[in-house]
Amino acid sequence: MSDLSQDRGLLLGDGLFETVLWREGELVLFDRHVDRLARSCMALGLPKPEAHRLETAARDAVTRAGIEGRAAVRLTWTAGGSGRGLDRPEVIAPALIAKASSVAAAGAPVRLTTVSVRRNEGSPASRLKTLAYLDNVLARAEARAAGTDDGLMLNNAGMIACAAAANLFWFEGERLLTPALACGVLDGVMRGVIIDAATGAGIAVEEVAAPRARLAAASGLFLTNSLVGIAPVASLDGVTLPSNAGVERLVGISRWSW
Amino acid sequence: MSDLSQDRGLLLGDGLFETVLWREGELVLFDRHVDRLARSCMALGLPKPEAHRLETAARDAVTRAGIEGRAAVRLTWTAGGSGRGLDRPEVIAPALIAKASSVAAAGAPVRLTTVSVRRNEGSPASRLKTLAYLDNVLARAEARAAGTDDGLMLNNAGMIACAAAANLFWFEGERLLTPALACGVLDGVMRGVIIDAATGAGIAVEEVAAPRARLAAASGLFLTNSLVGIAPVASLDGVTLPSNAGVERLVGISRWSW
Repeated sequence: MSDLSQDRGLLLGDGLFETVLWREGELVLFDRHVDRLARSCMALGLPKPEAHRLETAARDAVTRAGIEGRAAVRLTWTAGGSGRGLDRPEVIAPALIAKASSVAAAGAPVRLTTVSVRRNEGSPASRLKTLAYLDNVLARAEARAAGTDDGLMLNNAGMIACAAAANLFWFEGERLLTPALACGVLDGVMRGVIIDAATGAGIAVEEVAAPRARLAAASGLFLTNSLVGIAPVASLDGVTLPSNAGVERLVGISRWSW
Repeated sequence: MSDLSQDRGLLLGDGLFETVLWREGELVLFDRHVDRLARSCMALGLPKPEAHRLETAARDAVTRAGIEGRAAVRLTWTAGGSGRGLDRPEVIAPALIAKASSVAAAGAPVRLTTVSVRRNEGSPASRLKTLAYLDNVLARAEARAAGTDDGLMLNNAGMIACAAAANLFWFEGERLLTPALACGVLDGVMRGVIIDAATGAGIAVEEVAAPRARLAAASGLFLTNSLVGIAPVASLDGVTLPSNAGVERLVGISRWSW
């Protein structure tokens, strides 16, 4: 492996990652992860990895870790080494790092806290799964300090964006809503799966710019990410949230349960 | 050294750095760098390194690199290893990385381009020199693509913030202005030196939230960072900027020239 102490991934957060669920001997939704990583590389101006190289690295990581059950496979793709400073070198030689870790199926519904750290809607990086993930770390820490599981992040305009490690959906009556990517929202793989599944089942999905107050009229608030699928939100800022039958329906349609 | 492939610095941008000028056998403004790193560790909830450990690492790096003249010494301080995910471990064991690179004294006045990537004024990280520096990388790349040297970054409210690798000052008549830290501005070491020097010399310094249009009335726009000191801006978005005698006066007062 190249010298990671001088890799732009470490020095500048210049790189990307994917977290893929391994379940029953399968890399779940792997094509979607490969596709997102390729699109993200294009957005950042990085060379993209070949799908078969990613798959080999991921499977090797699971084998190396000796994991029997469910695993999270993290694939890290950096901008490689370069000289000092912000400018990338003429030839970019990314490092690929794969690591598998055991994960349990997600448990109880989550408790959310609205945190002070905002999403940067004014950067393309806010829509990508980049190595510059410190704001997410800070948002999570703030939620933990409040005794809850994850942080609800707003953007600088006060619009709802996402959780520190998940996308967010809710129902208003029969309609399903989720913050638009333009709000500084990670373009999540599971977010895409849910939008596709709901649309296919005739549930209208709206991608919105909505202020925090909009959630007062919401029911069935839930989070999505690649590891847990759909996870209902039990409470937001200490207030118990109403459920919505649409969430169970979506779990059935999308085959994703928490 | 610990396994950097699983260090939170690489995986999540969870960590900090300092870039210190080495000149004539001396780590320039070293106490200010140590102090900023300590304050930044406190802001992020990281343990702080001891000053003598930083100094030893920095001097060793210069020796190792065999540099005779001017050098940039980069000190990287990570949040260390942890399990999967955003949550930090109970005990944080940071990695310290030191690297010295030759640098020339800065040359010609810089050309700036206003870039599309915004500063995240809604995150404390925007005021710190963190490993999550990808927005700065993108801002610089945008400026290079426009054939210029660095990017002028606004925040999400459209207020002037800083350049990708420097702070920004300008004159309005006799008054010296610089964007307030609350605008999402890096709390630069040289920024602090210049404010102190100007104030000490009776030049009024105002820290402001100012829209891009405010620069139409500016003269003597200049950049500051620890490596170049003061660097005048020759042009902004292709428009040649008026100079101001105050800049030369500041160079004299602060003993920082480009």
